[in-house]
Amino acid sequence: MRPKIYLFGDSITEYSFAEGGWGAALTNHFSRRVDVVLRGFSGYNTRWALKVIDKAFPPASAAGSGGDEAEAEAPLAVTVFFGANDACLPDQYGAFQHVPVDEYKQNLRSIFSFFKRRWPKTHVVLITPPPIDEAARLLNPYGEIKLGLPERTNEAAGSYAMACVSVASECQTPAIDLWTKMQQIPGWQTAFLCDGLHLTERGNRIVFEEVVAKFEEQGLRLETLPADFPLFTDIDPNDPLKAFET
Amino acid sequence: MRPKIYLFGDSITEYSFAEGGWGAALTNHFSRRVDVVLRGFSGYNTRWALKVIDKAFPPASAAGSGGDEAEAEAPLAVTVFFGANDACLPDQYGAFQHVPVDEYKQNLRSIFSFFKRRWPKTHVVLITPPPIDEAARLLNPYGEIKLGLPERTNEAAGSYAMACVSVASECQTPAIDLWTKMQQIPGWQTAFLCDGLHLTERGNRIVFEEVVAKFEEQGLRLETLPADFPLFTDIDPNDPLKAFET
Repeated sequence: MRPKIYLFGDSITEYSFAEGGWGAALTNHFSRRVDVVLRGFSGYNTRWALKVIDKAFPPASAAGSGGDEAEAEAPLAVTVFFGANDACLPDQYGAFQHVPVDEYKQNLRSIFSFFKRRWPKTHVVLITPPPIDEAARLLNPYGEIKLGLPERTNEAAGSYAMACVSVASECQTPAIDLWTKMQQIPGWQTAFLCDGLHLTERGNRIVFEEVVAKFEEQGLRLETLPADFPLFTDIDPNDPLKAFET
Repeated sequence: MRPKIYLFGDSITEYSFAEGGWGAALTNHFSRRVDVVLRGFSGYNTRWALKVIDKAFPPASAAGSGGDEAEAEAPLAVTVFFGANDACLPDQYGAFQHVPVDEYKQNLRSIFSFFKRRWPKTHVVLITPPPIDEAARLLNPYGEIKLGLPERTNEAAGSYAMACVSVASECQTPAIDLWTKMQQIPGWQTAFLCDGLHLTERGNRIVFEEVVAKFEEQGLRLETLPADFPLFTDIDPNDPLKAFET
């Protein structure tokens, strides 16, 4: 059977199959080679993610541990994309989603360890939260604006992004620093974000490109992943059925 | 674990996660409830589909046959979307993809029986090939144009569409008659088709809407499919962790 890549995260992952979404683009990119599986949980922070992680992913193997079957069922990779909700300010309407940055780091370590314990060879890529456009957040609130302040700030998101990069480095696993990457482009506030937090099609495009690039660094590239059955270009017009002989 | 819906077909299925694609839209629609799994094989006809079908889908159950585990692993539904390649004319450059319409019918019956044998309760939805815009095919050929004729005609696609609807009726399984549906809209040639054969974003939208409607007729609707973990709206801001107690 075809190998899998899991996308684990919050709404920025859950919405990644909407118009122009990065999850859909990954599925299209890996069609015939990999099944991209959506495990996005809108609104979740890392604390809640840890409450569901054990049941959100299949066990290492139905047959037991460590055998060939377990190897076969391990996903190629998992993206871990949390932090946008953890970084909600603790004194605004998103306070119940807030997770202190030290706990966020500890939770990311636990998520990383969970995957490595279950599937030692699976590539785990951490993705930082995107930057926040505070003006747009004030225009698109989910709750009551207090004292004219947004529920998320770019500075807070930045400290969670730094924390994420630091955990990745500590765990010797790759990270995509979306917070920094996006802010390198003038006009990032509206080019990449549609409501100051979620992604536009261009924002989705960046995530897609960064994830593909990071996978390629890990050796997960189209050229080396087998297609699961003859590609159209491998079929001889003069003897089409030959390609299907085993 | 989350139930699955498989999309089985040719390029119109394989490309369904590209920009605006109907497969991505289905994944987005069913996020948190169902895993939509892509099994699209560009260029394939039903004859070739039957060569790969057994290995393209998981066995009924690792543990044996008929037990609860088999039940749990059966997908909710499969879409079967072939015919556009079978309908290639037998005397133009797509001749090696051509499958006579009687064999096409027999092959569709075999595909249907395969799924029903493996998973008796799985809904199988047949989708007819779309109409063909012959003028656009002449402008977008994959091979040598002979005698000024395209490799596919709308009339030929129509007879395969009728054959598909007839097999569905015989098997008492739902069909989506895309060939007829699309031609009800004036300007269908460019509104729904980008090269006389493959779908534009509007064409993809129609397929998405028709598939969702057909699933709902079969009882596969968001309202009755459980979300796999607490939705954000189910989380009490005053006691968020309560939603995660089991």
